[in-house]
Amino acid sequence: MPLEFAPQRDVSATQEDAYPTRHPDRETWLERKDPVVWTDKMPPAPLTRSDMDSFERDGFLVMRDLFSPAEVAALVDRSRELREGGRAVAGDDVVTEPDSDAVRTIFRLDEHDGLMNALSRDARIAGIVSHLLADDVYLHQSRLNYKPGFTGKEFYWHSDFETWHAEDGMPRMRAISASLLLTENRAQNGALMLMPGSQNVFVSCQGETPDANHESSLKRQEVGTPSQVSLADLAAQHGITDAEGPAGTLILFDCNTIHGSNGNITPTPRSNAFFVYNAVSNALTEPFAASGARPDFLATRNTPEPIDIRGGALV
Amino acid sequence: MPLEFAPQRDVSATQEDAYPTRHPDRETWLERKDPVVWTDKMPPAPLTRSDMDSFERDGFLVMRDLFSPAEVAALVDRSRELREGGRAVAGDDVVTEPDSDAVRTIFRLDEHDGLMNALSRDARIAGIVSHLLADDVYLHQSRLNYKPGFTGKEFYWHSDFETWHAEDGMPRMRAISASLLLTENRAQNGALMLMPGSQNVFVSCQGETPDANHESSLKRQEVGTPSQVSLADLAAQHGITDAEGPAGTLILFDCNTIHGSNGNITPTPRSNAFFVYNAVSNALTEPFAASGARPDFLATRNTPEPIDIRGGALV
Repeated sequence: MPLEFAPQRDVSATQEDAYPTRHPDRETWLERKDPVVWTDKMPPAPLTRSDMDSFERDGFLVMRDLFSPAEVAALVDRSRELREGGRAVAGDDVVTEPDSDAVRTIFRLDEHDGLMNALSRDARIAGIVSHLLADDVYLHQSRLNYKPGFTGKEFYWHSDFETWHAEDGMPRMRAISASLLLTENRAQNGALMLMPGSQNVFVSCQGETPDANHESSLKRQEVGTPSQVSLADLAAQHGITDAEGPAGTLILFDCNTIHGSNGNITPTPRSNAFFVYNAVSNALTEPFAASGARPDFLATRNTPEPIDIRGGALV
Repeated sequence: MPLEFAPQRDVSATQEDAYPTRHPDRETWLERKDPVVWTDKMPPAPLTRSDMDSFERDGFLVMRDLFSPAEVAALVDRSRELREGGRAVAGDDVVTEPDSDAVRTIFRLDEHDGLMNALSRDARIAGIVSHLLADDVYLHQSRLNYKPGFTGKEFYWHSDFETWHAEDGMPRMRAISASLLLTENRAQNGALMLMPGSQNVFVSCQGETPDANHESSLKRQEVGTPSQVSLADLAAQHGITDAEGPAGTLILFDCNTIHGSNGNITPTPRSNAFFVYNAVSNALTEPFAASGARPDFLATRNTPEPIDIRGGALV
């Protein structure tokens, strides 16, 4: 029963490290100590009981047709404008490709645009996540991801939680990422790949966190990834699912689900709006395995406000 | 009617350049001057009339279940032995990954192993190809390709013929490549991608051929690839097909079909035995756009013997 595992609201205040990681000379597998789904209450539409079970089992959920064609078209148009606006729109919140000036990521997406802000509060995303986590939620991170055609680079396997715990001080596994696809995503053009069921093991990684690790890890993660032996074991146990779908598809995944993506030589770029929701009871403490906290655009730190979730159409 | 286009047997002796390429400052699209299927005779089994039509239309054909499970198992075992033997088996015929010593390719595969030699002469491959080209054939190139898991690199879009014409002196488009899969190939682990129909245009590439270009182009091709504008046009016109299938699947593709493959971060490697068959009437002349010919392991040059095609099972 999920609720049996629920920690007290103030677990973060204890500073106890439930998930030690970044050990200098060994990797270990630890059992997950937190539920994946934090409630057994019946969900609000459009989430179904079957969706909840699927999310609990796999650590992710792919939902289509949540948004109307007009809403999807408006979001796609806006993402193009934001990307073309580039540094002018988002300044220091922009990250570029390793080998070029192409825009790869715009952070703090919810602060740079009204429509994207509305999307981040939409009941069809934030409402579902809040239900699954059985708590109010806030935005730990939000961004627009853009993976260009021809030269899109791979992103290697990792658990987001491992980084958020080690480098941001997120105490427990009570956060969910939401990726709303703004282009068609297929295995062929480097769609997100997830290992279903991998959310139930915490791979405590080998390797110490360099200072200002995020400056390179956003482009290519070197520390905080499982070994090839562990990844091969996980893939053999769980398989690998391509999260494919047209623009408008929503992918929800648990903070500890192992994921990655291949490079993309096709002419077709990939793009998505990405929101990480954390339970307000799981607010950040000091980093568990890094010398200093990462900057605010990567991890909201200062007394986060719960999201004011809104129903109704975006456009 | 394909046969109307058939050049005289001795076209190569004329040294006329039917497909000029590597122009220093422009790219152009030229119409294909050769048939894709050189005969209208009914094919020998296992090839069907429908397969022939499909090959002519798409420039490739994916065939399954040509080989028995015992044959596939024997070939897979042998490929593993050859790869593990590495340099000891194949010496200078081995190419490694850009960033490591992992074996990527063993050239002159037919010369390094009896079973692979028998495979190269098998009626189910060489016989089909000889029928499609309406000529005796010889091995222009043969190799074992190995793309490791986790770190497999992408291979960018190109027409093989463009390189073989420019750098090897192959006069006309009368050659077919055969890739026999020795692992499961999926879009997820970097399967071959082809643009169906692209065989009908010759993209005359911009850029001059550096000396000893093959020393780097085998790892990462920089010259002799279409521009991004051309590739986007071709993909929009023709789409991109993932050539997926289990071990034992045969992929035949025309020498001018545009193809490439993505990188592979999954734990699952990809491997195939690769044979390029050229019509004996299309034997190499001097390179059309390079200062010197490439070495023999890349392009058989000295009075090639027609393949002695053999029926019957491999094991």
